[in-house]
Amino acid sequence: MRPSGRDLSEMRPVSIETGVTKHAEGSCLIKVGDTHVLCTATIEDRVPPFIKGSGLGWVTAEYGMLPRSTTSRMRREATAGKQGGRTVEIQRLIGRSLRAGIDRVALGERQITVDCDVIQADGGTRCASITGGWVALRLAVQKLMKVGDVISDPMTDPVAAVSCGIYAGQPVLDLDYPEDSDAGVDGNFIMTASGQLIEVQMSAEGATFSRSQMDQLMDLADKGVRELVEAQNAAVNA
Amino acid sequence: MRPSGRDLSEMRPVSIETGVTKHAEGSCLIKVGDTHVLCTATIEDRVPPFIKGSGLGWVTAEYGMLPRSTTSRMRREATAGKQGGRTVEIQRLIGRSLRAGIDRVALGERQITVDCDVIQADGGTRCASITGGWVALRLAVQKLMKVGDVISDPMTDPVAAVSCGIYAGQPVLDLDYPEDSDAGVDGNFIMTASGQLIEVQMSAEGATFSRSQMDQLMDLADKGVRELVEAQNAAVNA
Amino acid sequence: MRPSGRDLSEMRPVSIETGVTKHAEGSCLIKVGDTHVLCTATIEDRVPPFIKGSGLGWVTAEYGMLPRSTTSRMRREATAGKQGGRTVEIQRLIGRSLRAGIDRVALGERQITVDCDVIQADGGTRCASITGGWVALRLAVQKLMKVGDVISDPMTDPVAAVSCGIYAGQPVLDLDYPEDSDAGVDGNFIMTASGQLIEVQMSAEGATFSRSQMDQLMDLADKGVRELVEAQNAAVNA
Amino acid sequence: MRPSGRDLSEMRPVSIETGVTKHAEGSCLIKVGDTHVLCTATIEDRVPPFIKGSGLGWVTAEYGMLPRSTTSRMRREATAGKQGGRTVEIQRLIGRSLRAGIDRVALGERQITVDCDVIQADGGTRCASITGGWVALRLAVQKLMKVGDVISDPMTDPVAAVSCGIYAGQPVLDLDYPEDSDAGVDGNFIMTASGQLIEVQMSAEGATFSRSQMDQLMDLADKGVRELVEAQNAAVNA
Amino acid sequence: MRPSGRDLSEMRPVSIETGVTKHAEGSCLIKVGDTHVLCTATIEDRVPPFIKGSGLGWVTAEYGMLPRSTTSRMRREATAGKQGGRTVEIQRLIGRSLRAGIDRVALGERQITVDCDVIQADGGTRCASITGGWVALRLAVQKLMKVGDVISDPMTDPVAAVSCGIYAGQPVLDLDYPEDSDAGVDGNFIMTASGQLIEVQMSAEGATFSRSQMDQLMDLADKGVRELVEAQNAAVNA
Amino acid sequence: MRPSGRDLSEMRPVSIETGVTKHAEGSCLIKVGDTHVLCTATIEDRVPPFIKGSGLGWVTAEYGMLPRSTTSRMRREATAGKQGGRTVEIQRLIGRSLRAGIDRVALGERQITVDCDVIQADGGTRCASITGGWVALRLAVQKLMKVGDVISDPMTDPVAAVSCGIYAGQPVLDLDYPEDSDAGVDGNFIMTASGQLIEVQMSAEGATFSRSQMDQLMDLADKGVRELVEAQNAAVNA
Repeated sequence: MRPSGRDLSEMRPVSIETGVTKHAEGSCLIKVGDTHVLCTATIEDRVPPFIKGSGLGWVTAEYGMLPRSTTSRMRREATAGKQGGRTVEIQRLIGRSLRAGIDRVALGERQITVDCDVIQADGGTRCASITGGWVALRLAVQKLMKVGDVISDPMTDPVAAVSCGIYAGQPVLDLDYPEDSDAGVDGNFIMTASGQLIEVQMSAEGATFSRSQMDQLMDLADKGVRELVEAQNAAVNA
Repeated sequence: MRPSGRDLSEMRPVSIETGVTKHAEGSCLIKVGDTHVLCTATIEDRVPPFIKGSGLGWVTAEYGMLPRSTTSRMRREATAGKQGGRTVEIQRLIGRSLRAGIDRVALGERQITVDCDVIQADGGTRCASITGGWVALRLAVQKLMKVGDVISDPMTDPVAAVSCGIYAGQPVLDLDYPEDSDAGVDGNFIMTASGQLIEVQMSAEGATFSRSQMDQLMDLADKGVRELVEAQNAAVNA
Repeated sequence: MRPSGRDLSEMRPVSIETGVTKHAEGSCLIKVGDTHVLCTATIEDRVPPFIKGSGLGWVTAEYGMLPRSTTSRMRREATAGKQGGRTVEIQRLIGRSLRAGIDRVALGERQITVDCDVIQADGGTRCASITGGWVALRLAVQKLMKVGDVISDPMTDPVAAVSCGIYAGQPVLDLDYPEDSDAGVDGNFIMTASGQLIEVQMSAEGATFSRSQMDQLMDLADKGVRELVEAQNAAVNA
Repeated sequence: MRPSGRDLSEMRPVSIETGVTKHAEGSCLIKVGDTHVLCTATIEDRVPPFIKGSGLGWVTAEYGMLPRSTTSRMRREATAGKQGGRTVEIQRLIGRSLRAGIDRVALGERQITVDCDVIQADGGTRCASITGGWVALRLAVQKLMKVGDVISDPMTDPVAAVSCGIYAGQPVLDLDYPEDSDAGVDGNFIMTASGQLIEVQMSAEGATFSRSQMDQLMDLADKGVRELVEAQNAAVNA
Repeated sequence: MRPSGRDLSEMRPVSIETGVTKHAEGSCLIKVGDTHVLCTATIEDRVPPFIKGSGLGWVTAEYGMLPRSTTSRMRREATAGKQGGRTVEIQRLIGRSLRAGIDRVALGERQITVDCDVIQADGGTRCASITGGWVALRLAVQKLMKVGDVISDPMTDPVAAVSCGIYAGQPVLDLDYPEDSDAGVDGNFIMTASGQLIEVQMSAEGATFSRSQMDQLMDLADKGVRELVEAQNAAVNA
Repeated sequence: MRPSGRDLSEMRPVSIETGVTKHAEGSCLIKVGDTHVLCTATIEDRVPPFIKGSGLGWVTAEYGMLPRSTTSRMRREATAGKQGGRTVEIQRLIGRSLRAGIDRVALGERQITVDCDVIQADGGTRCASITGGWVALRLAVQKLMKVGDVISDPMTDPVAAVSCGIYAGQPVLDLDYPEDSDAGVDGNFIMTASGQLIEVQMSAEGATFSRSQMDQLMDLADKGVRELVEAQNAAVNA
């Protein structure tokens, strides 16, 4: 029933390759099916003005799509003169999600910027960015711990994200682009490895959904995140 | 336990005054406690390029805050040279939510723009904007039906929105600003009068939440939306 | 002869309601006929760089129109990415006019920003903004004097503004929108309660005017400002 | 008493050289004392959208200052990314003033853009721009008449502008920069050769002025404009 | 003598992998040492306004760097609100260079946009972009020829680019980042496979160079371009 | 054979008038045929952040064209909201070229900004800007030396620039606008009085050129620069 032939609760194949760029303190290339996102983490000593002197650290994120990551070419945001509303929404979501998985006291007064750049898009780029972004962040923090700049591990519980939606009347896990374009209801679940919720965003365009459908979607998300956390752990410990 | 002394499941007083500006096709001033939002609906014959000639209508929204609607003065976005990320997120949400409550075929090829301008803010401005925006939209549509430009009613099921969150460890309904500033988890539920979900946005900053807490929040939202729909019906039929 | 049936030298009804928003240090809603402007005054301890350390105070103003304050919807300036030329001209005029009525030494090194936001427009919004802006400013200064932050009253002489023009060949006072659209000559007079001039702006688009007409317009302005000052005094002392 | 030693009602020397650039349809370099402005007029067949098909012509103006036209270097507006409020105000004034001196029916459906670029500034640049701009416009119109594109002369009455102000308590004509910086009251009078008023802008910063002072300033302006019109006629007929 | 130990006339290892993204009509990942650039070519039926209806085709290019492609993180141009001067210079150069290698009549009235996005930078990104951009363009054109949209091959002579400079007093080929930072004179040579020059840009910052040095640099460039053309041919024919 | 009737190696007449504006520390109006550029040099005590405290000086340049310096009117860049790519390229080139002719240690920690504003354009504006800009810079430095702010002369070797190209198959010197529009190959040579090269930019649009043609162009440039340096010396010593 799904265009890809997947089962309703079946994720696309996930791979996470680390160390893909020589400059960044942490980096990975995450592939969720045909969605490919390059994630890098940059450590800087400065923090935003509103926490200067607080001793707390900060994690922030930026998101971008290469112009031809999509089926037809998108206008480059640098040419358009600003980041679009969708981009701003997504990068704020990535930042909030990653901050939920870090102890900012233990991190100490420094900032880590996670850049998520979509090389190839096929649906679910924001979820792939959060899942891969967590890996890049984890690697950068390991580097800080290795040299003794950070003593106590600020990252205890992995954070991962997956999309779910109602496609052709059925709740499905991990929508690809053809499904995403047709789904009347879809959204994203950001969760920790221990099953706690960080962010839930379900949205209906032209349709509505019931509470029991909402429950089914949460069950699917729970399954998907567990699988993503396994891939994260494998990548980080490789 | 709540700063305002309200019960956990108690909304602030809600009032909706209609016909507050002589130019707009539909308008209201909604007050949810000390949060006051002026909502106007403008009917235009043009539609966005992507639906030109389709026969379908469009509903969109814009959101703004007066500079001194807040405790300390905010910079005017027109001076800053762009709408901030928060503004863009909110107005996209209002637009999506209102579109979910309208039959775009019945509306016909015209656009209605709902402007939500916050006169005074005390938490929950986006939910008040959706609830009041629906009333302004409803009044504009009634005007179209009265003159025969629209025959079959495109708005069957009212749309309203309420915030919920976990404050001091307890799920609470309709957060005001002091609660909103302190809540580790909060979000918005946009629903129809018949209890269907349109959009769910729960977000934790620095905390996480469990599925059973999510369930409690949904119960609260259900209660709040029912009360808001009553206020909407009273305003529209006044 | 006037569309509204008013006499040539007759103002529209004026009302000024104070204390209309709980956050601002001074506020009022001024209504001059169907022109409604919300004016708020914000006190801040900082001053612009060019007077830092001088001991002098500063008064500045910003102006905006809600998108549907007008007959047909205007584009929101925050969306357009900048304030238009007309907006910039108006807010510079409001600021200059209010500064002419304040003793900056007595005010002390602080800044008061007066925001004038047009809720509903029917001609004469800049004059209503100055007249109402003076009331908001006066209330904010009274608050400073009450708590002893300002000792000697920096505002001795009220400032008010009125438009005049030549409509259908006749000099008229206080143009409303239908008159304003048709007048070949029109302008604004900003004056003090004691009859001194602060700013005179007469402008002809497609016509010219003689010195004797200029004299008649100044007589009208004098009458109008006296009436506005009465309304200001009543509002401030209420 | 004046820094330059001029009498109270004495203009600075005025010269207007025409034909200073080979590309423009009309051009002049106007010098009013040490204020030098290059004015060019460009004829185009297109008109602004709001008069398309009306048969009416349009005259518009743009104003700029070279970065080192002033005592200390100003930031280039193209670098700053926008025209400042003062620039916008001035170019709107120039455009309105020149339109008051042209019969738009006789001009026919075409646009003339007058560019006024300040090469060297010493006070009164906007008045010099209007006075010189009229000459450039006149020459461009003569070219249209010569080739028969315009039959009936659309420019009957020359337009010129002069500044006046109250300096050291005395009304003075044609303020230079040292006077302009110190004057508590100053402004601009735009008039026709026949003595009619087009625009009056008197403004007090930190002072006020009486009606009898206003009368004295208008007498001075009248004298100044008569002298400028002579220079314009000499230049155009040279 | 070179930091990398290379001979004065020795290129870094070059590899060109094609078909690296599923959406673009042509694509490659070019690696010149540690400089990695992703090049994609997009075919569109529209052309720029200035050649509409001429029957001629157009080739244009855009260039960007991922924020952490560099040693320390660069600000994202989409966030900065515009492309910097360096970016604009580079993408104009890429576009001009690629157009020099294409017969625009044979291409027919369509546009090909070549996007060059730097994944990892180590000097010479603009030259790698041109060399790799030609491969992406070539593959896109082959696709057009395969389906018969283009009959006669518009690309006869490959285009490639290499940097040269004077480092520590010696002319060297293909500068990497450490050399580039220290070279007093450096520049880029864009050439065809047949040895013709398309663009020469030599620039000295704080030094100058003689004509005989210029000759030596041209000899080096000639050698480098020949090697790059071999890599291009291998990639395209793979 | 050239539209102007000049010999292949014949420059247009060159004149350089100094002291053309009273505010700037150095200024000239350079005319190369019908190309007229006003160049001013401004001395400031501040330097860019990246050399603060280094003791080194800085020279930078900005470039602009008056809207009607060209055959048809160009849009003002201040109105467009940004400097175009061509402008940015040119002003970076002028700055680099002038810096190559100055000893930044001898200049001391101060900045000189050279503004080049094109009053009338007929091809070769960037070369005229560099040649005239050097004169303005030289005069400003002389002023610094006269008052003893600079002791040892930081400018030893004049810098001048000339364009060359291949027009109708022939290498020609100093292209005017009709030649520039038609030349398949053209570029700029920036050189010192002693014959050293500072910058070489040859570019082919739609054509290519051989090394022997490159040699002929360099011979022409050498001749042109020698003549320009004579004009510079005459102007500076006048």
